[in-house]
Amino acid sequence: MNAPQQKGKAPKTAISPTRAEDYAEWYQKVVRAADMAEMSGVRGCMVIKPWGYGAWELMQRDLDARFKETGHENCYFPLFIPLSYFQKEAEHVDGFAKEMAVVTHHRLTMKGGVLTPDGELEEPLVVRPTSETVIGEAMSKWIKSYRDLPLLLNQWANVVRWEMRPRILLRTAEFLWQEGHTAHETYDDAMQETRRMHEVYRQFAEEVLALPVICGEKTPNERFPGAVNTFSIEAMMQDGRALQAGTSHYLGQNFAKSIGIQFQNREGQLEHVHTTSWGVSTRLLGAIVMTHADDDGMRMPPRIAPHQIVIAPIARDESDRPRVMDYCESLRAQLLTQNFCGQPLRVKLDARDMAGAEKKWEWTKKGAPILLEIGPRDVDGGKVCLTRRDQLASGKRFLTRDEFIAAAAAELAAVQQTLFEQALAFQKSRTVADIKTRAELEAYFKKDAENTFVGGQGFVRAKWSGDAESLKIIDELGVTIRCIPFDQDGKQGACVLTGAPATQDVIFARAY
Amino acid sequence: MNAPQQKGKAPKTAISPTRAEDYAEWYQKVVRAADMAEMSGVRGCMVIKPWGYGAWELMQRDLDARFKETGHENCYFPLFIPLSYFQKEAEHVDGFAKEMAVVTHHRLTMKGGVLTPDGELEEPLVVRPTSETVIGEAMSKWIKSYRDLPLLLNQWANVVRWEMRPRILLRTAEFLWQEGHTAHETYDDAMQETRRMHEVYRQFAEEVLALPVICGEKTPNERFPGAVNTFSIEAMMQDGRALQAGTSHYLGQNFAKSIGIQFQNREGQLEHVHTTSWGVSTRLLGAIVMTHADDDGMRMPPRIAPHQIVIAPIARDESDRPRVMDYCESLRAQLLTQNFCGQPLRVKLDARDMAGAEKKWEWTKKGAPILLEIGPRDVDGGKVCLTRRDQLASGKRFLTRDEFIAAAAAELAAVQQTLFEQALAFQKSRTVADIKTRAELEAYFKKDAENTFVGGQGFVRAKWSGDAESLKIIDELGVTIRCIPFDQDGKQGACVLTGAPATQDVIFARAY
Repeated sequence: MNAPQQKGKAPKTAISPTRAEDYAEWYQKVVRAADMAEMSGVRGCMVIKPWGYGAWELMQRDLDARFKETGHENCYFPLFIPLSYFQKEAEHVDGFAKEMAVVTHHRLTMKGGVLTPDGELEEPLVVRPTSETVIGEAMSKWIKSYRDLPLLLNQWANVVRWEMRPRILLRTAEFLWQEGHTAHETYDDAMQETRRMHEVYRQFAEEVLALPVICGEKTPNERFPGAVNTFSIEAMMQDGRALQAGTSHYLGQNFAKSIGIQFQNREGQLEHVHTTSWGVSTRLLGAIVMTHADDDGMRMPPRIAPHQIVIAPIARDESDRPRVMDYCESLRAQLLTQNFCGQPLRVKLDARDMAGAEKKWEWTKKGAPILLEIGPRDVDGGKVCLTRRDQLASGKRFLTRDEFIAAAAAELAAVQQTLFEQALAFQKSRTVADIKTRAELEAYFKKDAENTFVGGQGFVRAKWSGDAESLKIIDELGVTIRCIPFDQDGKQGACVLTGAPATQDVIFARAY
Repeated sequence: MNAPQQKGKAPKTAISPTRAEDYAEWYQKVVRAADMAEMSGVRGCMVIKPWGYGAWELMQRDLDARFKETGHENCYFPLFIPLSYFQKEAEHVDGFAKEMAVVTHHRLTMKGGVLTPDGELEEPLVVRPTSETVIGEAMSKWIKSYRDLPLLLNQWANVVRWEMRPRILLRTAEFLWQEGHTAHETYDDAMQETRRMHEVYRQFAEEVLALPVICGEKTPNERFPGAVNTFSIEAMMQDGRALQAGTSHYLGQNFAKSIGIQFQNREGQLEHVHTTSWGVSTRLLGAIVMTHADDDGMRMPPRIAPHQIVIAPIARDESDRPRVMDYCESLRAQLLTQNFCGQPLRVKLDARDMAGAEKKWEWTKKGAPILLEIGPRDVDGGKVCLTRRDQLASGKRFLTRDEFIAAAAAELAAVQQTLFEQALAFQKSRTVADIKTRAELEAYFKKDAENTFVGGQGFVRAKWSGDAESLKIIDELGVTIRCIPFDQDGKQGACVLTGAPATQDVIFARAY
């Protein structure tokens, strides 16, 4: 597999192995080197460290504003769900039963010198894997008439899904997310909401995370457990695999019927509401690493970089130190008066007493978009020495201080744009649209004797009939249909798997 | 017990019973009437509804900025704590063992038609009641040298303490909070941090929540389990009981020693760090209800009111509706350009189709600081009809539109000030400082045959020796020493309980 960017520099990179050498290992190393997160001593659970959490906070702030603009209000529902709630929706419980943390006791007692669970609960409690059931219970009490609709709620919360093969940020037993839950009078209203939030996710992913995504609907076997339709945004990682970056579900009247969420309609009759739910999670932190990082570490999109600009004073001589520090401090103060995307610039003055090269590598690995190294000569010349993380290979640039202050926001916008364009170019270069037969598809997703994929590394866009035979074949290949993209040519063709007549294109890919 | 404000209006109030009739029941009714929260179907757990959660979000935003200003970074640690972590600090585990939710299984399996916990864990996991242990484990890996110190962390999270007698917002099995955790080189540094964050809480409580508090140190038996010193802010509720509104702990080297958090000091030797922790929770939502609400419902301090100004268009005649709505919309747009405490005003246009009186009562019960009712006559006259929640008894005022826009921020500041001053006057009026003997103290905290307190309703400030005999007497009285206040006259006196020589004043009170 090729790296998305070719660099003209020496083979020595900050991250070893490189993407090309061992992608899975490279990913772990980047997360670690960027100091974004680490696995904890608690099985399957992670610690999100300040540089990763800071990015998550900025994602939250941006998304939260989008949710509020579209009329949603935040609230908070219990962490625990009684078994009886969960049991009501059969498909839903089937989808989650195998990965639930169950609370059975409410105290610890010392028995023979060992702390032992005690005080058994009459009804075990599940730690929420998602909150349709517990929020549905509340909705059934709150909603009386069509005047109470739409009910547009969101919560920011932690959820737990017991993962047997955890992978940091992407698949952990506990993760953080937001879950929107809404109730509506009609199918049309609920479907409009489902599509609206799907579009909010697309815009957020592309504008804020610099993550180009494919928008479409899930096939029936890939839907959320209990949903009628599921829409997703699918991003391509640098190993060509797909990552589902956000989902929006139209739940029909399924949960309304099993829980009993009814309203008096405009004609005075009782009806079940139509509900939706939609969510994105801290998995997005993994997605941006797998999309934007390179062999020197993370490259953080400026819109979510906890520090967009890092100023590193460099004064080997103690006597230079005061004027270098003064210069850096006033530079920072001036930069703070500038805005990028409607927010004041986030500028860090890193005055730690350590070697300049070491400091530079640290911020490179963390992926701060812009690094300014300021030494006595820069102070004398009224200059800044700038390194843009997306232009590491082209090295340093010297600008006058005023030039840089005036251009800072534009430089950040350029970094943001570059990351998006590189990711989009990569996604396009790795999307194949000329596979017409099952044999070709099998060759593309070929595995060797050790079950490692050794064929193409990307997305295959092809016609699919949707029949039972074709679903069986997909399972054998070990790939998934990521979605039925919204943009369709509608032309008649033949199903790539069975040869049966088919009009719709789907995206085949290996997935995280 | 008297209400803090006497009103000149008819006895009919929105909340029944009134504070004087049944304080505990009144509290529940206010939380409900203000639509801030409700108990869920999950034992001991609550749902925080948008009006309550919105206030919490504003508290978070304000506090978070104060934490960041004082150098702290946010991060996130696991929800689950292995039993073995918890067992290391003996006092700590003793303090929490009786109220812990314990996860023992990781899936559900259908057995004989019943979903049953399955997949027993080798080591049970505790749902965090607080995170000293799990964060301490991380610190022990992260900290190597004095250069890594101070380590200043905070997390926003949910925690679980199994409450046998839940009370909405004040004492629930699950609640939301922030917990700061820091590590330092020396006692001095750690103590300075402990006191600094205690002072941050005081300022936040008084400036933002309009909650006057008494600052002091806890007596040994009231300390956080495992702490060397605990400092708290104590607020007085309208029934004269104390509510601990925030705590800051100096943990000494206790956790560092039991977990093994060591660093190489400036002399090259290994030493244990000194740690601190500090937190406030959604209990503050209960505190502001119990402090500011009256017999007509909640009175929300403007700095945390989700909507500071509510505009209610009133147009009985359909033909008036368009121009009334236009007027209200442009009024809202103008108000949004104004700032209060550095933030744009939060203005809600409530255009729901319902009776004006009903709408007014709804916002009164929720405690929106300012209500503007706008009818056709106001539009014609270029006026607004204003009701301030803290001046309900004085009724409506008419201002020109421009007058109001210019004065809006000042009106909000006045509401904020009024709430603080009323609460402070109440606290002072209910603090007794002339009790000198055990008999007098017993009379003040006297109970009747049904164990109901029938004496004074407030705080008693008196000398206390701190000896064992005095501690025993306190237990018998059923009151607590809330704190040893920072402001002390230092004069020699006699312990109110035992008559022994004593120099320090303490605050006695019943507490939530």
